[in-house]
Amino acid sequence: MFVAEVRIDLKKGVADPEGANTKKALELLGFSNVLAVESSKFFTISLDVGSEAEARALVSDMSQKLLANPVIHNPQIVIREVQA
Amino acid sequence: MFVAEVRIDLKKGVADPEGANTKKALELLGFSNVLAVESSKFFTISLDVGSEAEARALVSDMSQKLLANPVIHNPQIVIREVQA
Repeated sequence: MFVAEVRIDLKKGVADPEGANTKKALELLGFSNVLAVESSKFFTISLDVGSEAEARALVSDMSQKLLANPVIHNPQIVIREVQA
Repeated sequence: MFVAEVRIDLKKGVADPEGANTKKALELLGFSNVLAVESSKFFTISLDVGSEAEARALVSDMSQKLLANPVIHNPQIVIREVQA
């Protein structure tokens, strides 16, 4: 079994209100060392496929078709093999 | 500068409707090899601190106070040193 970890980052320059508000809230709580906060979405996808290459191709296709919006998102994919 | 990557997973047994619906949507799009999808939240936090230990302690405190809900979440923290 292969597990794909897909992190959907926002592209540089795209507004990240969740990140900005989290930074503000951390500062209000007294955390004064915070330089920046960026928020992302993360999916862990378990796949029944035979090879890492096959898993990567499938998940790249999934990202394009459903998980990410190419206008604003920058998906990063990591594939790990896991003993079922 | 240190960068903390905080992944806020749901604890085992906590309902994950976003993950379940993503799995359903992938199946409707023809991806038949998907065994499971889990959704998580991800924060990338840049910190102006002197050591990895200090960064880890701060971010662990942030998780408890703001980022994660200990009843349903399982935060995982990775600290990286970055040249500013």
